Amino acid sequence: MIHRKLSEATWREVRAAGERGIALLPIGSQEQHAAHLPMGTDTLLAEEVLDRATALLGREGDVAELVRLPALPFGHSPHHLFAAAVSLSAATLGAVLDDVLDSLATSGYRRIMVVNGHGGNDEMMRLAVKRFALRSDVTVAACSYWTVTAGEGDGERPDVTPGHAGWFETSLMLAARPDLVRTPVPARGPVEPPPLFDNPPYPGLTVERHGEWARVGGSTDDASSADAERGRRLLDARAAGLARAIRAFDAATR
Amino acid sequence: MIHRKLSEATWREVRAAGERGIALLPIGSQEQHAAHLPMGTDTLLAEEVLDRATALLGREGDVAELVRLPALPFGHSPHHLFAAAVSLSAATLGAVLDDVLDSLATSGYRRIMVVNGHGGNDEMMRLAVKRFALRSDVTVAACSYWTVTAGEGDGERPDVTPGHAGWFETSLMLAARPDLVRTPVPARGPVEPPPLFDNPPYPGLTVERHGEWARVGGSTDDASSADAERGRRLLDARAAGLARAIRAFDAATR
Amino acid sequence: MIHRKLSEATWREVRAAGERGIALLPIGSQEQHAAHLPMGTDTLLAEEVLDRATALLGREGDVAELVRLPALPFGHSPHHLFAAAVSLSAATLGAVLDDVLDSLATSGYRRIMVVNGHGGNDEMMRLAVKRFALRSDVTVAACSYWTVTAGEGDGERPDVTPGHAGWFETSLMLAARPDLVRTPVPARGPVEPPPLFDNPPYPGLTVERHGEWARVGGSTDDASSADAERGRRLLDARAAGLARAIRAFDAATR
Amino acid sequence: MIHRKLSEATWREVRAAGERGIALLPIGSQEQHAAHLPMGTDTLLAEEVLDRATALLGREGDVAELVRLPALPFGHSPHHLFAAAVSLSAATLGAVLDDVLDSLATSGYRRIMVVNGHGGNDEMMRLAVKRFALRSDVTVAACSYWTVTAGEGDGERPDVTPGHAGWFETSLMLAARPDLVRTPVPARGPVEPPPLFDNPPYPGLTVERHGEWARVGGSTDDASSADAERGRRLLDARAAGLARAIRAFDAATR
Amino acid sequence: MIHRKLSEATWREVRAAGERGIALLPIGSQEQHAAHLPMGTDTLLAEEVLDRATALLGREGDVAELVRLPALPFGHSPHHLFAAAVSLSAATLGAVLDDVLDSLATSGYRRIMVVNGHGGNDEMMRLAVKRFALRSDVTVAACSYWTVTAGEGDGERPDVTPGHAGWFETSLMLAARPDLVRTPVPARGPVEPPPLFDNPPYPGLTVERHGEWARVGGSTDDASSADAERGRRLLDARAAGLARAIRAFDAATR
Amino acid sequence: MIHRKLSEATWREVRAAGERGIALLPIGSQEQHAAHLPMGTDTLLAEEVLDRATALLGREGDVAELVRLPALPFGHSPHHLFAAAVSLSAATLGAVLDDVLDSLATSGYRRIMVVNGHGGNDEMMRLAVKRFALRSDVTVAACSYWTVTAGEGDGERPDVTPGHAGWFETSLMLAARPDLVRTPVPARGPVEPPPLFDNPPYPGLTVERHGEWARVGGSTDDASSADAERGRRLLDARAAGLARAIRAFDAATR
Repeated sequence: MIHRKLSEATWREVRAAGERGIALLPIGSQEQHAAHLPMGTDTLLAEEVLDRATALLGREGDVAELVRLPALPFGHSPHHLFAAAVSLSAATLGAVLDDVLDSLATSGYRRIMVVNGHGGNDEMMRLAVKRFALRSDVTVAACSYWTVTAGEGDGERPDVTPGHAGWFETSLMLAARPDLVRTPVPARGPVEPPPLFDNPPYPGLTVERHGEWARVGGSTDDASSADAERGRRLLDARAAGLARAIRAFDAATR
Repeated sequence: MIHRKLSEATWREVRAAGERGIALLPIGSQEQHAAHLPMGTDTLLAEEVLDRATALLGREGDVAELVRLPALPFGHSPHHLFAAAVSLSAATLGAVLDDVLDSLATSGYRRIMVVNGHGGNDEMMRLAVKRFALRSDVTVAACSYWTVTAGEGDGERPDVTPGHAGWFETSLMLAARPDLVRTPVPARGPVEPPPLFDNPPYPGLTVERHGEWARVGGSTDDASSADAERGRRLLDARAAGLARAIRAFDAATR
Repeated sequence: MIHRKLSEATWREVRAAGERGIALLPIGSQEQHAAHLPMGTDTLLAEEVLDRATALLGREGDVAELVRLPALPFGHSPHHLFAAAVSLSAATLGAVLDDVLDSLATSGYRRIMVVNGHGGNDEMMRLAVKRFALRSDVTVAACSYWTVTAGEGDGERPDVTPGHAGWFETSLMLAARPDLVRTPVPARGPVEPPPLFDNPPYPGLTVERHGEWARVGGSTDDASSADAERGRRLLDARAAGLARAIRAFDAATR
Repeated sequence: MIHRKLSEATWREVRAAGERGIALLPIGSQEQHAAHLPMGTDTLLAEEVLDRATALLGREGDVAELVRLPALPFGHSPHHLFAAAVSLSAATLGAVLDDVLDSLATSGYRRIMVVNGHGGNDEMMRLAVKRFALRSDVTVAACSYWTVTAGEGDGERPDVTPGHAGWFETSLMLAARPDLVRTPVPARGPVEPPPLFDNPPYPGLTVERHGEWARVGGSTDDASSADAERGRRLLDARAAGLARAIRAFDAATR
Repeated sequence: MIHRKLSEATWREVRAAGERGIALLPIGSQEQHAAHLPMGTDTLLAEEVLDRATALLGREGDVAELVRLPALPFGHSPHHLFAAAVSLSAATLGAVLDDVLDSLATSGYRRIMVVNGHGGNDEMMRLAVKRFALRSDVTVAACSYWTVTAGEGDGERPDVTPGHAGWFETSLMLAARPDLVRTPVPARGPVEPPPLFDNPPYPGLTVERHGEWARVGGSTDDASSADAERGRRLLDARAAGLARAIRAFDAATR
Repeated sequence: MIHRKLSEATWREVRAAGERGIALLPIGSQEQHAAHLPMGTDTLLAEEVLDRATALLGREGDVAELVRLPALPFGHSPHHLFAAAVSLSAATLGAVLDDVLDSLATSGYRRIMVVNGHGGNDEMMRLAVKRFALRSDVTVAACSYWTVTAGEGDGERPDVTPGHAGWFETSLMLAARPDLVRTPVPARGPVEPPPLFDNPPYPGLTVERHGEWARVGGSTDDASSADAERGRRLLDARAAGLARAIRAFDAATR
C-alpha cells in the first residue's frame, strides 16, 4: 500500500492517486494548553495518530493509495484567546474546509477523510463534510482522533472525551513528545463550581457561561497523574482504531 | 411560577422578566418525514415537549419566570430537499440564531435555553450558543428534546437518537398528534447497504455519501411498529427530563 | 378549494400541490408595541388576515390549492430594540426569505405569495421577491396586509399605513385578539416635534434621525380612541381584499 | 449660500463644511432605456435635478453649506441585464452606501441626503439610510427625484412614478439632454398582457414574473408622444421641489 | 476609430460595440490630498490620462471601438479617513469590480481594461481581474495610469510611483486642473523618521505602522517645487503610453 | 537571541515573548509545479529561507525574541486547479490572515512579519497587513522571500520574480530539497504566444486571459538548465537578506 504526502508529490501523482485513493486531511489548533503543554498539542497529536495509523496500514496490506495533506495548523479556539491562541472564526474555518474539500474534488478525489485533533473544530468539521457531500459526488468521512479506538478488546471506551490539557492529553504527549511537556506537571486542584461546559447541570444539556474558561484556569481536569506508559497504550489504540477505520471506509466506498 | 409567551406579552413584561427569567427558544424544521408523518414533525415535537415541561414546572414550584419565544419553524434541512423541505442554509440558520440571541441580550436577558427538535440543527445550535457566551455576559443552554430524559428510572437511555421518520418519531407523533399520522404507517424493508450516515463503517466515524438520503427512501428505520402508548411514555419522560433540566439550569445560574 | 398547512402535510401532498398550487408565506415581527399591545402583534394580524382570506376563498370557489407555510415569527426590527424586540438584521431576513423561496422552488412551486404584517420588513420582502423571480422561473407576489383592501366600496383607502401601535393596529387587535390588549389603552399626547420618520419635513422625503423612536415613546399616534367595531370592519375589508388578490393572482398566472 | 463639489474641495474644506453642512449624494444607474434613451439616463436626470435645485438655493438664501458628492454612476439593475446594464447586486449597492455614509460620518457630517434617479435602487437606499441612522448619531434623508414636487400648484401629482424609458423619462431627457435622445422616438404598441410588475392583478400587490422585462421589450409605456416643453415643466417642478425639500430638511435638523 | 461613453450610448450600441470592442473602466478615489489638492485628485487624473489617450487613438487609426464607462469615483482609502475620505472597504470595492466586470461580460464584452488612479486600489484591482478571467472567457487588463509610459525615449522611468499629494501629483494637477490647486503649494519639511509605508527599513519589505499617515501629515513628499511644465510632459507621456498600451492590448487579444 | 516555534511553546512563553518579540508567519501554497517539482514547493521554500534566516540571526546577535508560527500550507491558487491544487479563495485567505493577525494582537504581539512563498498570495497578504495596522496598534511587515536579497554585493537583483516552476524555483529546490525534484528536469520549449500574464503586451500592464495557464502547460519558463549550486547562492542570499530585513524591522520598530 502506498501513502504519500501531497506536499511532496507532483501534480500528476496527486491526480493519479485521486482516481482510486483517499485524501487524508489532519486539522488541529494552536491554543493554550495550561502551563505544561505546548500550544500545538492538538495538531501534534492528530498528526501523530494519523502517521502511526498510515504506518500500520503500510504494513498491513491492500488499502487504496493514501494521500496525506499537510495539517491545517490553526483551528477554532476563540475560548482560549483569554490566555493565548491563534484562532480562526467558525466562518473562516468553514470556508477553509469548503475550499480545501472543493479543491480536492476539482483535482479528482472522490473519497476524503478529515482527522481532527481539537474538540472546538467538531461542529464546523461535521457541517463541512455534510455540505460537501451534498454539493459534490463524493463520500467523505470525519473523526476526532479520540473517537476511534481499537475496539472492545483495548480497554478503552470509544466515547471518552479527551478533556483539555488534563490527564488524557498529557499522557499522550508524554508518550509522543515528552520533550515538549514541562515537568513537573502542575497539579490543578478542584474548581468550585466545576466548569459548566464540562459539567452541565443536567445530562444532555450543553451549557456555556461567559468567562468560564478563564475562571477554571484553562484546563478541564488534573493532569499531574498523567502517565507516559498509559499514554502509549492510548496512542496505540487510537492509531490502530484509525487504521481500521480507514480500511473500513475504503471497503465501504470502493 | 410564571410562564408566558413572548409574542403575547408587552415589551415591559418582556423586559421585567428578563432580569431574573429564562428565555426559551424552540427550533424545528419543515422537511419530508416519509409518507406518513407531516413536514412539521420536528417543530411540533419540540414545542410539545417544551409545553409539557413548562406545564410541569407550573405545577412544581419556584422556578424563575419563563418566557417562551415563538418557535423558529424552519431549520437546516438541505438533505431533505430531494423530496420536499423548507430549509435554511447553515449560514442563514446561524445568522438567525445570532440575531435572536443578541436581541434577547439587548432586551435584558442573561439566561437563555434553546430546545431543538431537528438533528440537522445540532451543529449550528451548538456553535451559536458558544459564540453567544463569548461575546455577551450570558449563560446559555441548548439541547435537543430527545437528549434530556427523566433519568435512570424511566427506562430510556439518554443517548438514544430519534432517527428520522422511524419508530421513535412516529410513536411520539401517535401520542402527540395522531390526527397528523397517515395510517397504516407503511413498512420500510431493510435497505442494503444501510445508509452510511446512520451506519458508519467504523464506530466513531461520521460518513456522508452523496445521494444517500434519496437512495434509502428518506427514513432511517421501519416505523410500522410504532406505538402510541410507548410514544406517550417517551414524551412524558422527555417532558419530565426537560422540566428537570430547566430547574437545574435555573439553580446553577442564578 | 383546498387549503392546507404545509407543516401538517406530508411531503407528497406538498409536492403534489406545488404543481398547480400557490404557496402562502406570512411574515411578521416580535417587537415593542407600546404599553398595551403584545410583542407579536404584527405576526398575529398577518396570520389573522390570511386565515380569514383563505376561509373566504374556501367558501367561494375554484382557486387552486393553497399551501400555507408557518409564519416567520421574527422580522427586521432594529429600531425597536431600544425597548424590546427579537430582530433579524436586514441581511439575515433577506437570507431567510431567499432560502425559503428557493426551497419552495426546489420542492416544485412556481407561484408564491408573501403576506407581511410589519412595515420594517417591506424593503427586504420586495428585494427578495425580485431576486427570486430573476433567478428562478416563478411568479411571486408580495403585500403587506394593510395594502390590499376590498376596494372602493369599503370606505377604506388602499394607501393608508397602519402606523405603529396606534389607532389602526389597536382597533384591529381589539377585534382579533381583545384578550391581548391591555386596557384602558393609554393615551399618548402630542409629541413635539413629531417623529421625522412619520412626518418628513417635505412630502416625498424619507427621513431618519438617530434616537427618534425612543424620543417619541415607541408609537406613531394616539391609540386611546381605538374601536373594536371599526377594527372588525377593517379586518373584514383586508381579508376580503386579500382573498380577491389571491384570486386575481391565481387568474393572472395560471 | 455655498455649495461645492466634494471632489474639488480640499479635505479641510470638506471637514469644515461637515460641521453645519449637508452632504448630497446622487445615485443613478447604467441600464438599457429602450432604443432611444442612453444607458446613463437615470444618473443624468438625478444629477440634473440636483444641480438645478442647488442652483435655485444658491439664489434663494441662507441654507447651510451643501457639499455635493460625485454621483454613484452604477445602481441595482439586474432586471435590465437581458439587454445591457452595468449592475451592482443589492448586497454590493448596500455595502457601497454603508461605506459612503460611514465615511461621511467619520469625516464629520451629521446631515446627509441621498438623491436617487433609479427605481431599482429604492429599497437598498431606504435600508441604508435606516441602518445608518441606527448606528450613527446622524439625520439622513433620501428621495427619488420624481417623488419631490413643487407642490399642489404645479399641476404635478407627487405620487406619479416615472415608469421606465416611457413618456416621463423621455420628456425629461428631451428637456435636459436632447442631444442624447435618438429620434424619432419609436412607438411602442400595447403589450398583452401588460407587464405584471407595472400592472399587478390587484391593487396593493407587488408581482414579479420571470422574464417579464424581456417579454415587454424593456419599457413600461409608449414614449413616442414625449414632449420637451412638458419635460421642462416637469424638471423645473422637481428641481423646485428638491430645493424646498433641502431647505425643509435643513430647517428641521439644524 | 470610434470611442463612446457608455452612459451616452443606447443599449444596442453598447451591445454592438461589445462584440469586437474594448470596455474601459476608470477608477479613482475621494480622499485627502494634503492642504492644496482636491479630494478627487486620483479620479480626475485617471480620467484625464484616459481621455487624452483615447483622443490620441482617435487621431491614430484602427483600434477597435472603445467604450468608456463612467469612472467609479470612490476607491479604497481607509488610511485617509483620519483627515477626510469617502472610502469603500476592500471587500466592497472587490464586489463593485466583480459586479461591473460580470455585467460587461453579460452584456457581451470579451475585452476590458481597468485604468486606476489610486495606489490603494491596486491589490483589489489585480485580484478582480484575475478572478474575472478565471470565471469568464475574457481577456482583461489593468494598470495604474503612472505605470504606463511612452517608453525609453520620454525620459520617464516606468517604475516611478506617484507618491501621495507630493511633487508628482501636484505637477500633474498644475497641468491638468490648475484651478483646483491651492497656491502657494505649502512646503512640507522632512519628517523624522520618514513614513515606514514609503520608506521600509529594508528593500523588498512592505511595512505598515498604526497611525503613520496622521503622523506624517498626509503626504509622502514635498510638493512645493511642483511644476506645471513638467506636469504637462508627464501627463503627455502617460497618455501616449496608455494609448500604446491600449493598441498593444487590442493587437494581442483580437 | 532566542527563537522558538509557537506550536512548541506554552502559552505563558508565547505571551511573554509577545511583549518585545516579533511573530513570524510563513505562508505558502499547494499547487501544481509542472512535472518535476512537488505541490508544496512554495511552502517548503518560504520555510527554508525563513529557517536559514533565523539561524543566521541566532549566530549574529541581539535581535528580539522571534516566535515562528507554523506555516499556513495553503494559499490562493485558483489558476492552478486546472491541473491540481489545494486553493483557498481570496476571501478565505484574507479571513485566515485577519484571524491569525487578530489572534496575535489579542495574545499580546505588537510586531509581526509575514513571509510569503507564493506569488498568488501577494495581494491578499498586502491587504491583510494594511487592514491590520489600521484596526490595531501594531507594526506589521510582509515580504515574499524572493523580494529580499543580501543587497548590491550578492549579484542578485532584488526585483527579480521567481516565475513558476521554472529555472529559479527549480534551482532553489535542487539546493534545498533535491530528493523532491524529479530528474531529469523536463525541458519546456518556447510557447507561442508566450503567456500574457507573464509577458504583457505593454510594460506596466497586468493582463489575464482565460485558460492561459493551461495553454502554456503550467510553468513560466524552461527549468531544464536549473542548477543546484546557483540555487544555493540564491537561497543564501535570500536568507541573508531576510535576516537583515528582520533586524532592520526590529531596529525600526522597537
